[in-house]
Amino acid sequence: MQKVAISIGDLNGVGIEIALKAHEKIKKIVNPIYCINKKMLKKAAKLLNTEIPDDFEIFEVEGDFEINPGKIDEKAGKYSFYSFISAINLAKEKKVDAICTLPINKESWSKAGIKYKGHTEVLRDIFKKEAIMMLGCEKMYVALFTEHIPLKEVPKKIKKEKLIQFFSDFYRSTGFEKVGVLGLNPHAGDGGVLGDEEIKEILPAIIETNEMLNKEIFYGPLVPDIAFTAKKGVFIAMYHDQGLAPLKALYFDESINVSLNLPILRTSVDHGTAFDIAYKGIAKTKSYENAIKYILNHKN
Amino acid sequence: MQKVAISIGDLNGVGIEIALKAHEKIKKIVNPIYCINKKMLKKAAKLLNTEIPDDFEIFEVEGDFEINPGKIDEKAGKYSFYSFISAINLAKEKKVDAICTLPINKESWSKAGIKYKGHTEVLRDIFKKEAIMMLGCEKMYVALFTEHIPLKEVPKKIKKEKLIQFFSDFYRSTGFEKVGVLGLNPHAGDGGVLGDEEIKEILPAIIETNEMLNKEIFYGPLVPDIAFTAKKGVFIAMYHDQGLAPLKALYFDESINVSLNLPILRTSVDHGTAFDIAYKGIAKTKSYENAIKYILNHKN
Repeated sequence: MQKVAISIGDLNGVGIEIALKAHEKIKKIVNPIYCINKKMLKKAAKLLNTEIPDDFEIFEVEGDFEINPGKIDEKAGKYSFYSFISAINLAKEKKVDAICTLPINKESWSKAGIKYKGHTEVLRDIFKKEAIMMLGCEKMYVALFTEHIPLKEVPKKIKKEKLIQFFSDFYRSTGFEKVGVLGLNPHAGDGGVLGDEEIKEILPAIIETNEMLNKEIFYGPLVPDIAFTAKKGVFIAMYHDQGLAPLKALYFDESINVSLNLPILRTSVDHGTAFDIAYKGIAKTKSYENAIKYILNHKN
Repeated sequence: MQKVAISIGDLNGVGIEIALKAHEKIKKIVNPIYCINKKMLKKAAKLLNTEIPDDFEIFEVEGDFEINPGKIDEKAGKYSFYSFISAINLAKEKKVDAICTLPINKESWSKAGIKYKGHTEVLRDIFKKEAIMMLGCEKMYVALFTEHIPLKEVPKKIKKEKLIQFFSDFYRSTGFEKVGVLGLNPHAGDGGVLGDEEIKEILPAIIETNEMLNKEIFYGPLVPDIAFTAKKGVFIAMYHDQGLAPLKALYFDESINVSLNLPILRTSVDHGTAFDIAYKGIAKTKSYENAIKYILNHKN
């Protein structure tokens, strides 16, 4: 069975509840190792009024502080960071096959003096590689060619050579055999009338990548507002909201976040710390279960 | 009962089949007047192997040609244009309360020497007014602040004064009491880090419009990839795919197209001529029925 390091996320949020609640299911498909120490685990379990399962294997992450459900807190921020770093190290040392991260709180990280904005930034910095961000669920995955940049910066980033690199990296990291590439403009440019990035950059990149791979993996450019009507498939979006608005409209609760193109495989839930419902026993485990399942079904 | 002029669309496409198939349902809620002559109606009904209902009221639109299912054809293009113009005239002369359009074929219009690209362009030209394009169904409507322009042109169009005008026109045309306004950038700019159009243009426009109306109608700017997760609501999208990709992902078959801010109310199906399935008896009538229902529920 594959070993997976679970970084426990912000202990003032829903992460630990999800981990405990889903353990029975998860342990049947992978061997989870939770990055949290005994003391903190006991505090959390007590607050949740739940037992710690006997087979809840932990990797001790140093730290001791009071859990305050729903509170932005320096100590909780720092602990979630160390838990994440511990998981990464387990993967680097090949002690686990992949890592799965529970949600951290950006403000708590900031309060703790951690300079990163989130998990992905840490991974990029540690591995000095351009991680590819992919979100979705078994029915539909969407990878983002551009991510957190203003919309007006997007069109100038759509360049053939960069696209070819991205397509190749994506194919190598996932092995998906049929990948739809979205156009940039309405109606995918409508033959050039509504923008020419499809003709000048995207289509040549698709053709050249397929030639290079000697397989017809990538197809498109697809008309962006029609591509998702089948409610399934694997897509590369040119920008953040083009891919994520339809994905989340369809599959918000089920979706996961995958970091590709790195030496290690990392999956994550696609939601935040949900401070408003922390330690109330009502957090949903679907996204977490799917994040684990992805590891089961895809090698890095 | 309200009178509605139905422009019959391209007779080589699915329009007439939909009109005949849905007549029994439609006539119970409005009084439809179909813009087609007896001769062409008979030809279509024969091809469809169906009877013409006795109460199928028509407005004679001159013309006589052979119907060729699925073919791009000059004569069919011209006829669909005249059918549309007839419907508009009936509305201008107050002989009907609204019009509902069945799909035309742009290439057939072009072959017939008609300079317009589609229905909306004709309406804008005839009424010399900025029609607002809204798509959706009862669960979710999306109006487009910008439409068929390249993505790189979008950010510079996001200007406060234009937004205020659009918001006011939209409110006056629909009476919707709660309208979500989407941001332009990922995470709605994330406090200015990912773009400042939200802070500089969109938020001030929302505030000023609400003040002017003395009601809290508009809210936002909303985070674009989260706004649609509730799968319902009324939204104003800053650009074409931001609104239509999630809408169509959720409600493709049910959606309709409404032209607002004109002296007449026009609704339309949100699909094309579907030449591939024309006269095969399998065209779906849901979008057409919803287009009629919108008229029933909203005065202009």
